Amino acid sequence: MTEPTELLARRTVLGPAYRLFYDEPLLPVRGEDVWLEDADGRRYLDAYNNVPVVGHGNARVVQAMAAQAATLCTHTRYLHPAILDYADALLAHFPPDLNRLMLACTGSEANDLALRMAQAVSGGQGIVVTHHAYHGVTQLLAQTSPSLAAVAPFVRTVPPPMVGEGETVAIAARRWEDQVAQAFADLQAAAVRPCALLVDTVFASDGIFPPAHGLLSGGAAAARAAGAVVIADEVQAGFGRLGADWWGFARTGLAPDIVTMGKPMGNGYPMAGVVATAAVVDAFAATGRYFNTFGGNPVAAAVGMAVLQELEQRRLPERAETTGQLLAAEWAHALPALGVAGIRGHGLYWGITVAEHGAAHSSTRASRVANHMRQHGVLISHSGPQGNVLKIRPPLTFGTEHVPILLDALVQALRQT
Amino acid sequence: MTEPTELLARRTVLGPAYRLFYDEPLLPVRGEDVWLEDADGRRYLDAYNNVPVVGHGNARVVQAMAAQAATLCTHTRYLHPAILDYADALLAHFPPDLNRLMLACTGSEANDLALRMAQAVSGGQGIVVTHHAYHGVTQLLAQTSPSLAAVAPFVRTVPPPMVGEGETVAIAARRWEDQVAQAFADLQAAAVRPCALLVDTVFASDGIFPPAHGLLSGGAAAARAAGAVVIADEVQAGFGRLGADWWGFARTGLAPDIVTMGKPMGNGYPMAGVVATAAVVDAFAATGRYFNTFGGNPVAAAVGMAVLQELEQRRLPERAETTGQLLAAEWAHALPALGVAGIRGHGLYWGITVAEHGAAHSSTRASRVANHMRQHGVLISHSGPQGNVLKIRPPLTFGTEHVPILLDALVQALRQT
Repeated sequence: MTEPTELLARRTVLGPAYRLFYDEPLLPVRGEDVWLEDADGRRYLDAYNNVPVVGHGNARVVQAMAAQAATLCTHTRYLHPAILDYADALLAHFPPDLNRLMLACTGSEANDLALRMAQAVSGGQGIVVTHHAYHGVTQLLAQTSPSLAAVAPFVRTVPPPMVGEGETVAIAARRWEDQVAQAFADLQAAAVRPCALLVDTVFASDGIFPPAHGLLSGGAAAARAAGAVVIADEVQAGFGRLGADWWGFARTGLAPDIVTMGKPMGNGYPMAGVVATAAVVDAFAATGRYFNTFGGNPVAAAVGMAVLQELEQRRLPERAETTGQLLAAEWAHALPALGVAGIRGHGLYWGITVAEHGAAHSSTRASRVANHMRQHGVLISHSGPQGNVLKIRPPLTFGTEHVPILLDALVQALRQT
Repeated sequence: MTEPTELLARRTVLGPAYRLFYDEPLLPVRGEDVWLEDADGRRYLDAYNNVPVVGHGNARVVQAMAAQAATLCTHTRYLHPAILDYADALLAHFPPDLNRLMLACTGSEANDLALRMAQAVSGGQGIVVTHHAYHGVTQLLAQTSPSLAAVAPFVRTVPPPMVGEGETVAIAARRWEDQVAQAFADLQAAAVRPCALLVDTVFASDGIFPPAHGLLSGGAAAARAAGAVVIADEVQAGFGRLGADWWGFARTGLAPDIVTMGKPMGNGYPMAGVVATAAVVDAFAATGRYFNTFGGNPVAAAVGMAVLQELEQRRLPERAETTGQLLAAEWAHALPALGVAGIRGHGLYWGITVAEHGAAHSSTRASRVANHMRQHGVLISHSGPQGNVLKIRPPLTFGTEHVPILLDALVQALRQT
């Protein structure tokens, strides 16, 4: 039985903490590249899902998973070449000092482990994040994610760094540096020793603010001056999402001590990782051992390698950069007349702030735009502190040929909401 | 390059927090049912790995995974029948009041989520665990796992419940009830409000003590009287490991509010779950939403269903019960003369305490036994607070035909160490 109304009723079994997208929830039954198909055979252009980074149902990834799962799936307490081959291939995309990889299964596990490492290095527990940050669902991360709930007493928040109208990057960077320094000073005044500056390098849940080059460097310096380590959360921004630089930290010229990654790493297979300096990993290891039953198993390693090969051989990060340039041009041409208050993005991660207009509604106009587009066959979402930012981040196989479909649906939705 | 020495050198990239099994680490390259094969073509009887519960490389599981991954892998923000079919099939193995399922990717995520639920229900954060418990690697769980490190100030420990020589279960249960009550009273005296009694229902890292029927009930009552909820951690004991009862809590007659599960749930595919009462899940949902990017995706649901079908249709829990009875008889016959200080277990989870004897060594005799057996083609491990307990828990496809191989290797190892 795959009627949406029937499935909705049966979802009671999952409890009320789960939420569905769209006023009319979607029931996809098949995926292929950038397309999802529902139970009625209708196709939707997927301009939202960042997990299937090399495309829904990617054949190379599925084949690698199936072949390794049929051969062997054990764990890191036995030797196996796959995890080491994968580590070498992944670390080739990092600066030389970020040369250690530890593996987990979810971005939450990666961020939680990164904070445990930061605690080991710093001896502190004070964490600075941005005002509407989201970093995961473990208890520690829920307490460190102001977009979920009130943060813990050992957490302070700062605004996401932004370059104001007519302002230089240097001035904005200095302002953010002051804000970060003040946040750590505030922790110290409360007798909380600094531990980490933890930033999503595309500031996704803050409303999507890909930082200009150099914008984060002062804040990182302020964190280090306070004795904290710098963690780049690349769960959203990593693996070419922002274009040819591969990582948000690389694009903005940040030199983190720890980098976390997740969602696209296995194209849907649960895998995540922490890349760090040897000093950080050694300090953590001195506090105890680490074992993750599934993290880094031979299947995860084979899947991760297939994803890397797809990204590299098809030059998908470079293609995201190019497609992103086309999107920027099209947005600039088509959207300003349609009640749009801001357009931010790079590569294939875009946030479009939608101005409210007309009669008051119970939902934001951005929500109505996303629902209108879903009804017309294109999937996006909306987020941000006020829920007024359209969130557009398709699989990286989304190319210039898909741009007109997305743009047409977006323009129609903005016109009619 | 798959030479063990070469791989050992390359493992620097993972850092020193990872540990390998055995003095001569194993390099398995293939797995089939209860057998692992190394790079030299040598076969090992796997009497240790509990994750591949329905056998290494299980064809039904691999096929389900590959077919669903090729078709669709999305997440719980869209409707999909697979997660609901799986939830119904899994919950059919639970008492009627445990009728909600939330999904995650690892046992750590499941236990962390369970504690967040317990916090929501109880309004407290005081946790009672056993002396040498292990519950996971998130920061919260590392602080709640005395086998890893010192516990947090909001944690108290009690001994694992044990029935002494010549003692009735009722007397032992009352003693444990008093210990649990005292632990919560101690938390309350420190102004920490009780949250949860969290127990691994086979007490694996405490040394493997499968509890007799009724042994935990008093402790659970004491926890509830203090305002705490009762969490059964079935990551080790669940899915038929202890025999026909399917769950450790069911076998001992415990009525938990929350049950967590992981390792065998996906036969190696990263999946884990929390089963709880509607009241618990509702209280948690009132504190905020929950989303796990990979947890409960259609591939996980298909894999989990294939594992359930294998367990059910091949009656593997019942078979574990029978094989366990044979093992018990063989142990009782062969081991007492060989310097064994205790044999505990049920189904296919056994702990054998090995007495030290002869000259002092830098390793425990249990460690030397496990290494001897590895050299002779049978894989087990050792654990417990003193590292002197052999840990035997093969895939549930381990049958009576494998018992002589295991027993011969064990007897030889005990004779020669």
